[in-house]
Amino acid sequence: MWKQRTDLAVEAKELWQQSVSEQTKLEGVQARSGSREGFEVDTVQVLDRRGEQALDKPVGTYITITLDGLKQREEDAFGRAARAIAQELKGLLGDLPAQAPVLVAGLGNRAITPDAIGPLVHEYTMVTRHLVEQVPEHFGTFRPVASLSAGVLGTTGVESGSLIRAVCDEIKPACVIAVDALASRSLHRVCRTVQLADTGIVPGSGVGNHRKALNKETLGIPVIAVGVPTVVDGATLAMDLLGQEELPKLAQGVENLMVTPRDIDAQVADLSKVIGFGIDLALHDGLSVEDVELFLS
Amino acid sequence: MWKQRTDLAVEAKELWQQSVSEQTKLEGVQARSGSREGFEVDTVQVLDRRGEQALDKPVGTYITITLDGLKQREEDAFGRAARAIAQELKGLLGDLPAQAPVLVAGLGNRAITPDAIGPLVHEYTMVTRHLVEQVPEHFGTFRPVASLSAGVLGTTGVESGSLIRAVCDEIKPACVIAVDALASRSLHRVCRTVQLADTGIVPGSGVGNHRKALNKETLGIPVIAVGVPTVVDGATLAMDLLGQEELPKLAQGVENLMVTPRDIDAQVADLSKVIGFGIDLALHDGLSVEDVELFLS
Amino acid sequence: MWKQRTDLAVEAKELWQQSVSEQTKLEGVQARSGSREGFEVDTVQVLDRRGEQALDKPVGTYITITLDGLKQREEDAFGRAARAIAQELKGLLGDLPAQAPVLVAGLGNRAITPDAIGPLVHEYTMVTRHLVEQVPEHFGTFRPVASLSAGVLGTTGVESGSLIRAVCDEIKPACVIAVDALASRSLHRVCRTVQLADTGIVPGSGVGNHRKALNKETLGIPVIAVGVPTVVDGATLAMDLLGQEELPKLAQGVENLMVTPRDIDAQVADLSKVIGFGIDLALHDGLSVEDVELFLS
Amino acid sequence: MWKQRTDLAVEAKELWQQSVSEQTKLEGVQARSGSREGFEVDTVQVLDRRGEQALDKPVGTYITITLDGLKQREEDAFGRAARAIAQELKGLLGDLPAQAPVLVAGLGNRAITPDAIGPLVHEYTMVTRHLVEQVPEHFGTFRPVASLSAGVLGTTGVESGSLIRAVCDEIKPACVIAVDALASRSLHRVCRTVQLADTGIVPGSGVGNHRKALNKETLGIPVIAVGVPTVVDGATLAMDLLGQEELPKLAQGVENLMVTPRDIDAQVADLSKVIGFGIDLALHDGLSVEDVELFLS
Repeated sequence: MWKQRTDLAVEAKELWQQSVSEQTKLEGVQARSGSREGFEVDTVQVLDRRGEQALDKPVGTYITITLDGLKQREEDAFGRAARAIAQELKGLLGDLPAQAPVLVAGLGNRAITPDAIGPLVHEYTMVTRHLVEQVPEHFGTFRPVASLSAGVLGTTGVESGSLIRAVCDEIKPACVIAVDALASRSLHRVCRTVQLADTGIVPGSGVGNHRKALNKETLGIPVIAVGVPTVVDGATLAMDLLGQEELPKLAQGVENLMVTPRDIDAQVADLSKVIGFGIDLALHDGLSVEDVELFLS
Repeated sequence: MWKQRTDLAVEAKELWQQSVSEQTKLEGVQARSGSREGFEVDTVQVLDRRGEQALDKPVGTYITITLDGLKQREEDAFGRAARAIAQELKGLLGDLPAQAPVLVAGLGNRAITPDAIGPLVHEYTMVTRHLVEQVPEHFGTFRPVASLSAGVLGTTGVESGSLIRAVCDEIKPACVIAVDALASRSLHRVCRTVQLADTGIVPGSGVGNHRKALNKETLGIPVIAVGVPTVVDGATLAMDLLGQEELPKLAQGVENLMVTPRDIDAQVADLSKVIGFGIDLALHDGLSVEDVELFLS
Repeated sequence: MWKQRTDLAVEAKELWQQSVSEQTKLEGVQARSGSREGFEVDTVQVLDRRGEQALDKPVGTYITITLDGLKQREEDAFGRAARAIAQELKGLLGDLPAQAPVLVAGLGNRAITPDAIGPLVHEYTMVTRHLVEQVPEHFGTFRPVASLSAGVLGTTGVESGSLIRAVCDEIKPACVIAVDALASRSLHRVCRTVQLADTGIVPGSGVGNHRKALNKETLGIPVIAVGVPTVVDGATLAMDLLGQEELPKLAQGVENLMVTPRDIDAQVADLSKVIGFGIDLALHDGLSVEDVELFLS
Repeated sequence: MWKQRTDLAVEAKELWQQSVSEQTKLEGVQARSGSREGFEVDTVQVLDRRGEQALDKPVGTYITITLDGLKQREEDAFGRAARAIAQELKGLLGDLPAQAPVLVAGLGNRAITPDAIGPLVHEYTMVTRHLVEQVPEHFGTFRPVASLSAGVLGTTGVESGSLIRAVCDEIKPACVIAVDALASRSLHRVCRTVQLADTGIVPGSGVGNHRKALNKETLGIPVIAVGVPTVVDGATLAMDLLGQEELPKLAQGVENLMVTPRDIDAQVADLSKVIGFGIDLALHDGLSVEDVELFLS
C-alpha cells in the first residue's frame, strides 16, 4: 500500500465528474447504485477504451460497498455486512464452479496497523484445501481454498507478486482473491468502504511495471481485488484542503504523514473480520455466519 | 490522551510569541536552549503567576528534547538519546536520595498504537522494589522501583489517576514518574520530541477536574511527567492549514481523525524503548545501557 | 501460579479418599454431584474444623465444573458452558444485591501461556463502573463492575495482593472475583475443569503468609476464587508415575518442567473467553451470550 | 513439528550406544566433541550406508551446540552463542560463494509457543535480496538473502514443503536454511541445544513421503536444517520414566501432552533471536552482532 496511490474507481469517477461539467454522461462507463442487506452499493463498469480513458482505469467492474451500520454496532450489522460482501463477490466470481480451487492472498504489512487488512483477512479465511484432500469424507463437498499472507518486500526480500505467482504455479487455483489496504483521496471514505474489482492488482506500486501486475493476462486466471481505504495521504489531504497551488510550501512536512481515524486499530480489526467472513460465505455455498465462526474457532 | 488537548509547553510559548509581537520578553518566563549528547534541549521555566498567565501553564520546569538522530539510526543514537533523557530527568528529580522509592506509571491504551507509549515504557522499566526487599544481598544498593501500566477507563472501570493514587497509598513512593502520549499542535514535533515536566499530570482530561490531577498538591510527592507527542488532531491540522475561520465547514469530517507518521508503529516502539532506558539510567546510578539491556532480557 | 502448589479441592478430597479406606464418610464434609447445561458439576462443602482437617482446606464451598463438550466444539457448547459457570457463580454470590459493585481481578502473567488465564479473562470482562456513573441514562440499571489485570511481582514490583487491596480501598467493591491459573495433580483435569470457591485466594504462594491472603477476613468483603488447572508440575507427574520413593533421583531434571496439553495456547484462549462470559452473565442479570459479545466488540 | 518424532542425531547415537554394548565403535560413523566460544559442540558424521543403518539417519554431518551459558545470562553469552552458531553454520555452507543467494525458511506455527522457533527466526533474518537489487550502491556487497515463514498446513492449506519449493523455483537460491522446532527424547536437551545438519528436512512428517522431503535430491541445492528441541512428548517421557512395558496403561492420558520448561515463552524468544543472529553472521561476512542489531532495528 505504502508506495502506491491506488485511487478507488468510485473516486476516479468523482474526479472525472469534477473536471468536466457534472451532468455529462461518461462514454464507455456505466454506473448504478443499489443496496445489499441495507448497505449502499455503487457499481461502476468500465466498458471499453473510452471508459478507460475517461476514468484512467482498465476495463472491468468496480463495486464499492459502504459499511455505515457496521460502525454503529447495529443489530446483526456484522452478519449483514458479511453477507453483502459475499453476494457482491459471488457476482464477480461469475460462473466459477463450486469445486474450483481458490487462493486468497492477503497483501500488506501486519506490523503497520492501517496496512494490516490483508494479513488479518488471511486469518479469517476458511482454509480447506488440505482438508478436501485429506478428509474427503467430511470436506469433500467444500471448495478447496488456500490462503497466504504474502508479506512485504522488506520482511521477505521477495515481491508479494512473485510469491503469489510462485504459489499459483504450484497449486494451480482457478481464481485469486487479493486483499489489500488502500490509500483514499477522501476523508469520508476511510474505513467506511470496501471495494471489489475483477481487474486484478499491482501490488506495491502503480508505476507501470507490468511484470508485477497480477491479473488474468499475467496469471492466466481471474484475479479479484478486495480493497479497503484505511488512510488518506497527508499530501492528498493538504491538497484537498488548500488547492494544488498551495501544496509545494507544505509538501516537505506532510509527505511522510498519514491521516487515519482515531480508532484505526479497532476499525482495521473489525473490517478484516467482516471481509474474511464475506469471502468465506462467497466461496463456500450454504454456510451461515455461525458456521464460519465455528469453523474458525 | 484521546480526550485531551495537552499542548506542550514549548508550543505554548510559540503560540504566545505569535500572538504578541515576537521580540517581547515574556515576564515570569525563562527559556534557554542547549544540547545533551548531541540532541537539542529546550528548557522553559514558568517562574510565577505572570508566567502562568502568559503561557497558561502552571509554575514549573518544562524540558523538550529533540531526538533527530534517533530516526536516522546514527551510530549509538539510541545510547546517546537514553543518556540525554536520563540526564535531564535527573535534573528534575533534584536531590531525591538514591534509595528513595519511585513509581513509574505508564498511562494510555496499549491497543491504540499512538497511545501505547506509556504501556510500552512500563515494559522497559527496571522493576526492583521486590528484589531490594527479597534479595537484599544482590539488590540492596538499587533504588526500589515499582511500575504500573495504569490502563484506560474503558478497560478497567477505574480512572488511571485513582489507580495511581491507590497504589501510592499502598506502597508510599517518594516520587512518581508518569509517562503518556500527547497530542501536538505541530506536524514537525510529532514522534520527534520528548517533554519532561515537574508539574504533574491530569490523566485523561484537561477540563479542570482538580480531583483527578496528579501532582505534589494532590499526592504529597513530586510527579514528573514524561510526554511524547505522537499525533496531531485532525481539527488542529486543518486549523493550522486553513486558519480558524475556515474550520467550521470542515469540522465534522475531521474531528475523529488523527495525523501520524506513516511508520507510527515502529516509531512508537523505538521511542518507548529509549524513554524506558532513559528512566532506568536516571533512577539507577552507575548503570550503562548494556546493564539495562541485560537486566531486562 | 508458579510458586504455588494450589491443589484443587476436588483433588484434596480424592487424596483423602486414597489415604483412608475409600468408603469412609468424611466428617465435616459434604459432597454432591450434579449437572448444569450438560456439564458435570461437583460440589464439596467443608462444613467445620473436622472437614478442614480432613481436606486441609478452609471452611467453604468448592465447585468443580467439568467442561468436556467445550473441547469437542459441540453445538452451542460455548454458550452452555458460559451459562453453567454463570449459574454456579451466582450461587456463590448469594444475596449480593444487583447494584452492588464488584471487582474482577485477573491474576497471573500474560507472557506465560498457561499462566495467562487471569489477564485474558480481564479482557472479556464487561467493565461498567465508569458507564454507570457517566452515562446513567443508558447504564443505570447495570451493576458497576471494575476489572484489573493484577500483573506479576516481576513486572510491577508490587504484589498482586497489595494491588488488589489498594484498589479495593479506593473503589470499595462489595465483592471480589479473583481469577487465576492453577497447577493440578491430575493429567486428566488439566484444561478441562473450572473451580469456583468462596474462600478467597492466596496469590503467588501458599506458604502461610496471612498478610497476603485475600479473603473476607483480610478485605472485609467476600472473595470468590475462579481457578483453572492448566499445568501439571513435572515433579508431581513424576511422583504420580513412579511413586514417592523414586522421586529424588529424578528431581533435579524435572523441577523446572511443566506438563501441558499440546494445544495449550488455543485451550487457554478458549477457557479464558468462556470464563469471562460466565462472569459477565453472572454479574449482569438478564443478558444473553450475544449481548455480551456485542458489548465487548 | 507436531506430527513428527524428529529425534536429534546426537540422541540417535545415544540410543544406538544403549542398545549395543557401549564401548563398540560404530562402523561408518565418526563423532567428535569440541567447543566454540565456550559452548560444547558435538559433531556426528554419518559416512556411509553402515552408518545410516547404525543411526537410522542419512549420510551427512550433524552438529549439536549446547547453549548452557545462554540461560544464565553470562556476560556476552548472547554474542558468543550467535558467533558459535555462525561458525558451525559456515562450516556446513562449505564453499558457497559470498554472493550466492540464500533462502531462510522458518517452519512451524507461530501461534503455538514451542513451535514458534521458525517463524520467530524469520523475523530476525537480515533480508537483503531486494536491497542488493534496488540499492546496489549500498548493498551490492551483501549476499542476497530472502526469508519466508512457511506457515502451517492448517493456516494456508499448502504444505510448507510445497511453499518452499515454489519459492525456490521463483527466486533460484543457491542454498536453503530451514529452521524448525523439534521434539526431543531428553528432558535435559530441551531448549538447551541447537542442531545443524546438512541433510535437509522433511517438514511436518517423517512417514516416508519422499515427495515432501526438502534436500539436495529434491530441490537440487543444499538444504541445511537448523533444529531446536523445545518439547518432550508426554508419551516419550512416560516411557523413559517407566520403561516400555508400562506405557500402554498410561498411553491414553499422555499422548496429547507435552513437557516443556516453565519459562518456555521466554526461552523460545531467546533461542530464536540467537539463532537468527547466528544465521545473519554466517551469511554476511564481516558483520558484528551490533551491526545485525542496527540493521534489524
